[in-house]
Amino acid sequence: MKSYRQELWFQVPGRRALINITPEVEKCLRESGIKEGLVLCNAMHITASVFINDDESGLHRDYDAWLERLAPHAPVSQYRHNDTGEDNADAHLKRQVMDREVVVAVTDGELDFGPWEQIFYGEFDGGRRKRVLVKIIGE
Amino acid sequence: MKSYRQELWFQVPGRRALINITPEVEKCLRESGIKEGLVLCNAMHITASVFINDDESGLHRDYDAWLERLAPHAPVSQYRHNDTGEDNADAHLKRQVMDREVVVAVTDGELDFGPWEQIFYGEFDGGRRKRVLVKIIGE
Amino acid sequence: MKSYRQELWFQVPGRRALINITPEVEKCLRESGIKEGLVLCNAMHITASVFINDDESGLHRDYDAWLERLAPHAPVSQYRHNDTGEDNADAHLKRQVMDREVVVAVTDGELDFGPWEQIFYGEFDGGRRKRVLVKIIGE
Repeated sequence: MKSYRQELWFQVPGRRALINITPEVEKCLRESGIKEGLVLCNAMHITASVFINDDESGLHRDYDAWLERLAPHAPVSQYRHNDTGEDNADAHLKRQVMDREVVVAVTDGELDFGPWEQIFYGEFDGGRRKRVLVKIIGE
Repeated sequence: MKSYRQELWFQVPGRRALINITPEVEKCLRESGIKEGLVLCNAMHITASVFINDDESGLHRDYDAWLERLAPHAPVSQYRHNDTGEDNADAHLKRQVMDREVVVAVTDGELDFGPWEQIFYGEFDGGRRKRVLVKIIGE
Repeated sequence: MKSYRQELWFQVPGRRALINITPEVEKCLRESGIKEGLVLCNAMHITASVFINDDESGLHRDYDAWLERLAPHAPVSQYRHNDTGEDNADAHLKRQVMDREVVVAVTDGELDFGPWEQIFYGEFDGGRRKRVLVKIIGE
């Protein structure tokens, strides 16, 4: 069994953004030399997500508006987590809807994807450097 | 390390349905000959889910009503994704709540399940042929 | 390839609770002797979750209030699942938001975590003994 590990770093200027990281994950897979196995790709921070969906800007606006409706940022005083001096309780909630991680099959050295699957980093509390872990195991 | 790959195909006549795919995944596991490892089972389409829950028809009606409340289909004009000519933005949102994939342990050649765990394909934008990927790695 | 399996048992006195199970999962990892691979940690019951987030009591109160808003327990008659004599339909819904499982990378014999990542058992229908599965594969 072979294993491979890489960190991807991001710094989003505003509070929220969705970034297509599929090319970076594909680069990791090529570097790993693994032909059959599994890729785990997860946010290493608890106010961010890694998820798979469509690279369509209208849909990304829909996600943002929908998450803001399900777990509004303001007023920050509505969340007990923010009593600690934070203002990011909503980001912890949004990340639960959008998920921490994806596991993707590797077949013949490629990400084994359907026609529209793309991997995204979802930032819900930006403004600082944060990481995604790519771990690949297989042969 | 052994690996196994299979696609399961579905065509749901209406817009939404939940289908118990546990027997098909068990068949894949038997075909693979793998006794210890992990099964990844994921929707290959971004308006569908694979998840684990209870095979109880009342609960399935509850899921449908609840998802429709969290991310209503109509009016389709409320979603920017639908400006592209699609009418399935809600399906992309519902799939995030219900998840893309499950990872299941394989122990002694069986899916290592608790008493009520069953694997479902969740279709939120039916009417055409769509796929689930079953990838198994182990020994 | 090595594999390791363990069950963790919980009995929550009330209906809902979040329990940090990171030390138990780390103990499993040490017992396994696995240095590179993947840990799967999943609820074996369909009204409970395993998820990764912050060990902060204010945030845990926020999760509880938020989940109760997204999928209220009462009135129990609002759910068709409860027509079967159950009163836990809301727990099946809450678990979908909070997820069944996490997959964590193992690197150099440790859980490969960002600074604040901790693994939680999320109970949404307590009062009886329930299990979490820890399955580790690797070398």
